[in-house]
Amino acid sequence: MAVDYQSLAVKGVQALSPYQPGKPIEELARELGLNPAEIIKLASNENPLGPSEKALAAARKALEELCLYPDGNGFELKQALANRFGVGMDQITLGNGSNDVLEVIARCFADTDSEVVFSQYAFAVYPIVTQAIGAKGVPVPAKEWGHDLDAMATAVTERTKLVFVANPNNPTGTVHTARAIESFLDQIPERVLVVLDEAYCEYLTGSEYPDGIKLLERYPNLIVCRTFSKAWGLAALRVGYAISSTAIADILNRVRQPFNVDSVALAAATAVLQDEAYLNRSREVNEAGLRQLSEAFELMGLPYIPSAGNFIAVEVGDQAQGIYQALLSHGVIVRPIAGYGMPYHLRVSVGLPEENERFLDALSQSLAAAGQGG
Amino acid sequence: MAVDYQSLAVKGVQALSPYQPGKPIEELARELGLNPAEIIKLASNENPLGPSEKALAAARKALEELCLYPDGNGFELKQALANRFGVGMDQITLGNGSNDVLEVIARCFADTDSEVVFSQYAFAVYPIVTQAIGAKGVPVPAKEWGHDLDAMATAVTERTKLVFVANPNNPTGTVHTARAIESFLDQIPERVLVVLDEAYCEYLTGSEYPDGIKLLERYPNLIVCRTFSKAWGLAALRVGYAISSTAIADILNRVRQPFNVDSVALAAATAVLQDEAYLNRSREVNEAGLRQLSEAFELMGLPYIPSAGNFIAVEVGDQAQGIYQALLSHGVIVRPIAGYGMPYHLRVSVGLPEENERFLDALSQSLAAAGQGG
Repeated sequence: MAVDYQSLAVKGVQALSPYQPGKPIEELARELGLNPAEIIKLASNENPLGPSEKALAAARKALEELCLYPDGNGFELKQALANRFGVGMDQITLGNGSNDVLEVIARCFADTDSEVVFSQYAFAVYPIVTQAIGAKGVPVPAKEWGHDLDAMATAVTERTKLVFVANPNNPTGTVHTARAIESFLDQIPERVLVVLDEAYCEYLTGSEYPDGIKLLERYPNLIVCRTFSKAWGLAALRVGYAISSTAIADILNRVRQPFNVDSVALAAATAVLQDEAYLNRSREVNEAGLRQLSEAFELMGLPYIPSAGNFIAVEVGDQAQGIYQALLSHGVIVRPIAGYGMPYHLRVSVGLPEENERFLDALSQSLAAAGQGG
Repeated sequence: MAVDYQSLAVKGVQALSPYQPGKPIEELARELGLNPAEIIKLASNENPLGPSEKALAAARKALEELCLYPDGNGFELKQALANRFGVGMDQITLGNGSNDVLEVIARCFADTDSEVVFSQYAFAVYPIVTQAIGAKGVPVPAKEWGHDLDAMATAVTERTKLVFVANPNNPTGTVHTARAIESFLDQIPERVLVVLDEAYCEYLTGSEYPDGIKLLERYPNLIVCRTFSKAWGLAALRVGYAISSTAIADILNRVRQPFNVDSVALAAATAVLQDEAYLNRSREVNEAGLRQLSEAFELMGLPYIPSAGNFIAVEVGDQAQGIYQALLSHGVIVRPIAGYGMPYHLRVSVGLPEENERFLDALSQSLAAAGQGG
């Protein structure tokens, strides 16, 4: 009798549904016979500016050595990060995107006997990495779409190994103040690791928000994760990192694949850290875009969740999946988030002014066609 | 009392020693104050030709879209691989180098109750991925430096989930014929997955060697792993892949990180598959280099293991570590393999003729200085 190979997989993996990424432009072009150049993608919280010239130049230069393995220690990038943040190079763990770092953390510190706490409506990768290792995910009901930090602290048990906190959170855009995060950390036992995912932190403006790295000295159980995929504009290259105590970084670096970040990625990320102007422009475009989108939603009478990220979740009603499809036919890709338990919302990434405009026009038309106003 | 965070790691990880990569050129340059341009690295089985022009052009083009996430499904690369090998796109799992694929396989199919069989002197990543998940590694003593396939078959127990077979094997360069591999596969129960690691298969010449992909129809428990890091010359970019049944590929793709291969890597790998001339040149340079090195070792009276890969393990005696250091001081990086249980050998990758020559000169001088002839 033939062997059922799927039944041979470990239990966690058998029950796993993989992450559903935003639809790539080329894929939509193939499906609908559209010209890729006429499609706009506001589905994956990407930076609409196009890449930093400094990053591009460094990436081009790195192409000269395609035959050589990357520096497995990522010396230059770690040095640049250490200088920027005033931490030791041995506190840094580089990842193939912050997804990689989040996964490595889970694999290092949790197993089938563990519980992992995260919020309802939080980043899909937290439950996925938890499920893949067969640990028990403990989703905590959200409060006004954001993390209910007190409830999350209460959800910690003897078996809890990890708590994931996203600040700002994706896909809701909610954010907590420094005071709230510190008061949360004060409630967590030191033996429980708190992963503070700050993928969108570069978009925060205002002194009331925390800088996780500054909290590391007070909270040795803290791991701060960041990425070059958002405000730094390098999503194509996959670079993320964790900053933690050296003891934790030593563990993470044992499990990290030796060449998990490639040479072009290392070079571009190192270079972009010198391009403060690019970061500032990213922030400005994002702030203006958030305003443009929020104001339009208000005029259209569409509820939305005020966002601290580079995206907004807007409520379009019980035909959200149909609206998503209608937008696709207009060549506009956004993100349905029914998979996050938000079937009435669509998440739209902030684009350039003209992209936001084109999305808003397509949205009005799609809503009108669906008989939902607009 | 302060928490010992290392003791909080899962057991397998606590006992893990990470992979030791070949020393990067920049690192040696920093350490010895040398000019990087004057250092040659024959330590990581890299392609000495420099990159394929077709791959380079595609990589440059991909840089235009640094802000966008890669195609998580790798459509174009999978299509190119499927066409080349006559398999379905749904039989392919892409990885961030074949290291990623090897790790994903272990995580999907083995856990703390499992045994994983591999050979003595086989690729270090097999025991590392086994250890990281807390499975029991079962190393089988080698036969004349190569896999003892009959002994490996005999080592399979009720708990065995995976067997790793490298053909050719790294770091020894040993290889088995198609007949030997098939006779081995005939002995393995169908419920045990055999991972045939063909990272170096493009260097094989001769009809007596197996093409793992052709064996997939007869052996549904087979997973064939390959890489673009060796003969295809793209080590910097990290692209590997597994080809298997669709059922197994479906499992692997659930655990694979959604954007594990980056956009530049996808583009370059897709393009290089069209550059058959590059592949042929890689083979020719390798064949000539193997001959050059072997003949020199014979003249020098140094025993070596005949190799089917793009490297040779040469026996330099009980001062191998000292010889390695002496070579470094000449600006020549090779690979000590004491970590593989081969303390008397050094592994040298095949370079261009003038690189091989420079290595051989430095080796003669280093041996002479150590009083070991040459």
